[in-house]
Amino acid sequence: MANTFGELFRVTTFGESHGGAVGVVIDGCPAGHKIDLEYIQKQLDRRRPGQSHLASPRGELDQVECLSGLVDGISLGTPITLIVRNQDAKKDHYSDLQDVYRPSHADYTTDAKYGVKAPSGGGRASARETIGRVAASAVAEIVLQQLIPGFKVVAYVDRVKDVQGRTDYGETLTRDKVEEHPLRCPDEATRDAMEKLIIHAKKTGDSVGGTIFCGISQCPVGLGEPVFDKLEADLAKGMMSLPASKGFEVGMGFASTYLYGSEHNDAFVNREGKIRTESNRSGGIQGGISNGEFIYMRVAFKPVATIFKEQQTVDREGKELVMKPKAGRHDPCVLPRAVPMVEAMALLCVMDHVLRQLPFAHLRGPHHV
Amino acid sequence: MANTFGELFRVTTFGESHGGAVGVVIDGCPAGHKIDLEYIQKQLDRRRPGQSHLASPRGELDQVECLSGLVDGISLGTPITLIVRNQDAKKDHYSDLQDVYRPSHADYTTDAKYGVKAPSGGGRASARETIGRVAASAVAEIVLQQLIPGFKVVAYVDRVKDVQGRTDYGETLTRDKVEEHPLRCPDEATRDAMEKLIIHAKKTGDSVGGTIFCGISQCPVGLGEPVFDKLEADLAKGMMSLPASKGFEVGMGFASTYLYGSEHNDAFVNREGKIRTESNRSGGIQGGISNGEFIYMRVAFKPVATIFKEQQTVDREGKELVMKPKAGRHDPCVLPRAVPMVEAMALLCVMDHVLRQLPFAHLRGPHHV
Amino acid sequence: MANTFGELFRVTTFGESHGGAVGVVIDGCPAGHKIDLEYIQKQLDRRRPGQSHLASPRGELDQVECLSGLVDGISLGTPITLIVRNQDAKKDHYSDLQDVYRPSHADYTTDAKYGVKAPSGGGRASARETIGRVAASAVAEIVLQQLIPGFKVVAYVDRVKDVQGRTDYGETLTRDKVEEHPLRCPDEATRDAMEKLIIHAKKTGDSVGGTIFCGISQCPVGLGEPVFDKLEADLAKGMMSLPASKGFEVGMGFASTYLYGSEHNDAFVNREGKIRTESNRSGGIQGGISNGEFIYMRVAFKPVATIFKEQQTVDREGKELVMKPKAGRHDPCVLPRAVPMVEAMALLCVMDHVLRQLPFAHLRGPHHV
Amino acid sequence: MANTFGELFRVTTFGESHGGAVGVVIDGCPAGHKIDLEYIQKQLDRRRPGQSHLASPRGELDQVECLSGLVDGISLGTPITLIVRNQDAKKDHYSDLQDVYRPSHADYTTDAKYGVKAPSGGGRASARETIGRVAASAVAEIVLQQLIPGFKVVAYVDRVKDVQGRTDYGETLTRDKVEEHPLRCPDEATRDAMEKLIIHAKKTGDSVGGTIFCGISQCPVGLGEPVFDKLEADLAKGMMSLPASKGFEVGMGFASTYLYGSEHNDAFVNREGKIRTESNRSGGIQGGISNGEFIYMRVAFKPVATIFKEQQTVDREGKELVMKPKAGRHDPCVLPRAVPMVEAMALLCVMDHVLRQLPFAHLRGPHHV
Repeated sequence: MANTFGELFRVTTFGESHGGAVGVVIDGCPAGHKIDLEYIQKQLDRRRPGQSHLASPRGELDQVECLSGLVDGISLGTPITLIVRNQDAKKDHYSDLQDVYRPSHADYTTDAKYGVKAPSGGGRASARETIGRVAASAVAEIVLQQLIPGFKVVAYVDRVKDVQGRTDYGETLTRDKVEEHPLRCPDEATRDAMEKLIIHAKKTGDSVGGTIFCGISQCPVGLGEPVFDKLEADLAKGMMSLPASKGFEVGMGFASTYLYGSEHNDAFVNREGKIRTESNRSGGIQGGISNGEFIYMRVAFKPVATIFKEQQTVDREGKELVMKPKAGRHDPCVLPRAVPMVEAMALLCVMDHVLRQLPFAHLRGPHHV
Repeated sequence: MANTFGELFRVTTFGESHGGAVGVVIDGCPAGHKIDLEYIQKQLDRRRPGQSHLASPRGELDQVECLSGLVDGISLGTPITLIVRNQDAKKDHYSDLQDVYRPSHADYTTDAKYGVKAPSGGGRASARETIGRVAASAVAEIVLQQLIPGFKVVAYVDRVKDVQGRTDYGETLTRDKVEEHPLRCPDEATRDAMEKLIIHAKKTGDSVGGTIFCGISQCPVGLGEPVFDKLEADLAKGMMSLPASKGFEVGMGFASTYLYGSEHNDAFVNREGKIRTESNRSGGIQGGISNGEFIYMRVAFKPVATIFKEQQTVDREGKELVMKPKAGRHDPCVLPRAVPMVEAMALLCVMDHVLRQLPFAHLRGPHHV
Repeated sequence: MANTFGELFRVTTFGESHGGAVGVVIDGCPAGHKIDLEYIQKQLDRRRPGQSHLASPRGELDQVECLSGLVDGISLGTPITLIVRNQDAKKDHYSDLQDVYRPSHADYTTDAKYGVKAPSGGGRASARETIGRVAASAVAEIVLQQLIPGFKVVAYVDRVKDVQGRTDYGETLTRDKVEEHPLRCPDEATRDAMEKLIIHAKKTGDSVGGTIFCGISQCPVGLGEPVFDKLEADLAKGMMSLPASKGFEVGMGFASTYLYGSEHNDAFVNREGKIRTESNRSGGIQGGISNGEFIYMRVAFKPVATIFKEQQTVDREGKELVMKPKAGRHDPCVLPRAVPMVEAMALLCVMDHVLRQLPFAHLRGPHHV
Repeated sequence: MANTFGELFRVTTFGESHGGAVGVVIDGCPAGHKIDLEYIQKQLDRRRPGQSHLASPRGELDQVECLSGLVDGISLGTPITLIVRNQDAKKDHYSDLQDVYRPSHADYTTDAKYGVKAPSGGGRASARETIGRVAASAVAEIVLQQLIPGFKVVAYVDRVKDVQGRTDYGETLTRDKVEEHPLRCPDEATRDAMEKLIIHAKKTGDSVGGTIFCGISQCPVGLGEPVFDKLEADLAKGMMSLPASKGFEVGMGFASTYLYGSEHNDAFVNREGKIRTESNRSGGIQGGISNGEFIYMRVAFKPVATIFKEQQTVDREGKELVMKPKAGRHDPCVLPRAVPMVEAMALLCVMDHVLRQLPFAHLRGPHHV
């Protein structure tokens, strides 16, 4: 299931960055939901490169087209297929790199695995593959928001290199607030410093990384399976499957390891007749199952591998050489565009676990979802 | 597939901590391999609680029994079923906790999900569930070592709370070296300080967490799928499915985000006719696919939830109450026992990806595995 | 998923006929159901050889033991593991056949596939493997009957060789009626002739086959998926995975091909406010989805391969030889014992599709299940 | 996995008959194979309606387009997406049937399942869905013929209603021979009688069914899994998932039940150093695993439900009414077009089992595939 994510809300992406189209088949979308293609397009636009001076100037239009699964905008319960044509496929753009393995890219490993080197710009390793994920996640988001009052997923740029923003927004933060600035960091106090770092990296032909914070509000209690398919395990897999991600943590994550258990445990309280936790260091998941509190996590993205400096490498024949810097069109920092990608994986993960929990919740009588 | 891990080397664990037995069915083990039950038992003994003064004094014997899949110690290619009887199941041990939700345990969420509260000590959320994982991983290890010369997986305690050990062992570290001390930290200079922390936690009825480092040596090139089933994504899922884990990173992980791309990229070189990387900040995986270098990762384990202090909580009816501390048998620090669990998930993950890659590698001619 | 059946009600069987035990892990049983081990035992007793003078005299007790998933007889929502120890494993019984490929058995193909010849009497190809299926199906049956009023699955011997019994019972037939006679044919007028055929085959060291009829009553409308996982496709797979089965048909099956469309179509009518069909030549499934009518099918079982006559064959080295007849303990006709096996696959299939349909039925509002 | 077939060669079809496009994503095609789009087109043309006077006059062009997975005609190892635009989608064509449940069609059950009635002409139940299957199977066929010398799959019309053709061609029959006549029955002696039957049905507004014979030559030994995923079980599922199929049999199938075991068993012989069977009543599969002999099977197709006679039925409100016959464009007999569909499912099934067997065959040393 190399190109499929999910058990019941099954998302299969396809397409190379320089082939005919990229896209996704969604198998398992419930019937009868109004699916707004404009909303899907809006999410794709957030993912698209070249949205601001901070990013690559590529003019990809990424126009979504629906091939199946909807009639008059209503889901049929059959596979929904969404594609985006590759408008801007210029193979020759990269042609002199054809036989060179770019450092810390997927060129060498892809070649070693398949024996076929995809045209440069990346085959399936290209960030363009995430178009299918974001399109599918917009469908998931529409359905989830129809099913669960108050449900929302909001991610934002948390840290760029060593510039850390505020992180105490909790469930109050809205996506509109995040979208106010092209950096997708809602912290007005630090985002100028972040921006400077990115512009500096761009000018020097270098790149920077950082972390994305993602929160899920009003997630129903009872999602996630107690053993391998813990909710945080599936979230971890989803996030670590994004290009350039190198780390994941949920709740207090790595910081929790510096506390005593007595400092970390979340006391249970009865708040207006509901069982809640007083603190939320667990991050809304206990024993792999959602407990109804705010779910939050962080994902680490490395500085992207494409830089415009001389680099030591080898070609397909194993000959060592020095790659010369040259003009190109890549983002010095993937973080702002990674925000909708991180939201996408959170949405796909929750949607799948909602469907997985439904038959059992249904049979129990009092429904949790 | 809530209780199953893997696509081709499929491991299904079963059993509650206080039922008849815990165990595992392994579907997909190649035929004709000599599988040594004593080796499996040895790995289970490493996982077992009560191995030293640092851990819980429980006298669980964890004697493995093989129900199927082997004839005269040779794998048949059919499902291998391994079980461990629950010798020490004393339900009443915990009986007065029956209706109390222990803070930061899975009691509440399990109850909310299933409507059936498993007997205390944990149902599937118990660390005892990992017996099946460790037993299966020992089978995987035996097969992998027969297939791949020099292949090994070695994990160790990297940090306890704020005491950080050395981490520059690379591929030279052996499991024997780790096993020399019950703490499973090979760094002689720091492990006394770690030990003191754990003993202090034990005395004060508290608990501590930390991180485990795990390295995979001589992993074949070409394992992992380029999109969702990236090798690091499946490793992340495996590790984050372990009880008490809260974070995962591969290669330089979160630390990579503080570097410029030019500082982080791994230059390719030709070393004795083989394409290798000069540095290994990527951690042996690029674009989701192994590149033949040392694969390394870290897993964060929170301080365990069981402590012996008064805690605020509620019962099943939602009534608030204070849990009183009382004598019990739990580890103040899960880290030493987590070492074989982390190795187990790494082994299961690699074994599965070896089988997944084999048909395609085979069809290519020059085999990578 | 070689040893697993089902998507949400996932049944994994394990065990060789002459190993330690055979059994099953059921992953996906809803929590909170009372599961009666005595009922499971009763179904296993129906499957057991040696129940009458018509069958093999083996004294297998097939005592079921539950290792996990139940507390005080209530399902926990965790994997239910059921095993039956192999009491009567006498390897030497067959030892002189060790290196001979019995005609039309799985010896040769198993050997060719795995390179390991399972001890004679069969490895996974043994009918003993079906113990796990029958045990799991009894759990499914208990849950289905608690969920769906009037739901039942009843199979019976329809034809032995060329002796055809009545088949017009419809939904009125009960399992008790079938169980009245060891042949499991409810047709008093023909079963004596069937019995004579079987006794004749036994005396002459030969074997006979025939067909099993299976009916499902009160199956909810809406089960089955419109493309690959049509209800009849999954039923076909289940039935054709039983040992010795060679054919499957649903509704009028092969006989439908002799009719004109105008003779075969089932007219819709409104019966007491419900949409029903006037005739039921489709067999309760249209377009792969159940329509609420009686589902019925037939399964063909070949004459079993074990006979007590001289037969031409080869050994593992390819040397041709003549197998001499000798005393043994096998049924001359698998049909009576195949009745509970056929019911088992029907139950597993329906249970799985009920769980698969539930989330979508639930989201629709008016529930079909 | 409602719309996916296969474990390693995973085929996901999508598209409604009257939406934007129908198509398929193939995940798991090995890299480096030359995939000829013209060959795929040729197979689609065989599936297309309106090929002769025997069939519907629809002018569907069914032009295949490749969206991903190939570069310069070479497979990349990434998902191959093939689509066919719906050129001839005229919703109004059927509009007065919008609220009527056509007898023995999927209208009622689809509506009951999803609560959304697909536009008439069928949603996923339309034979047009099989475009994706046939396109994917052409890819499988290309790869299989490159891997296995002499491998071929040839199906043909075996019987139309009560007119039975010859069936003793064995492995000598070629697809070219079958394609000589639009009926796709190679038996010159009987096909005129078949043709008359079909023309008679067409004239009288009726339909006829029959059986398709399918043979697989030079299938490697060792394909298929011994328990649930027996080769014949997966073939049965594949065939029974085709529209209008009602029965399946392998080898002698139902006819085997009329024989004694001594008449049915296939003696093993040593033919030129290879273990072979003297007869082949088993049909090339024993114990669920291929034995290297000719694999053959039959599939029963009912007379199609669309007829041009008055029929009793109900509408969505449950109101009884009489459907009037009217002009339309449907085949009176699906059999000739079902030939490539049956071949498609056989090819998909074998391709999947070849990939599933490869890692284990590879590990054994002497490769079977």
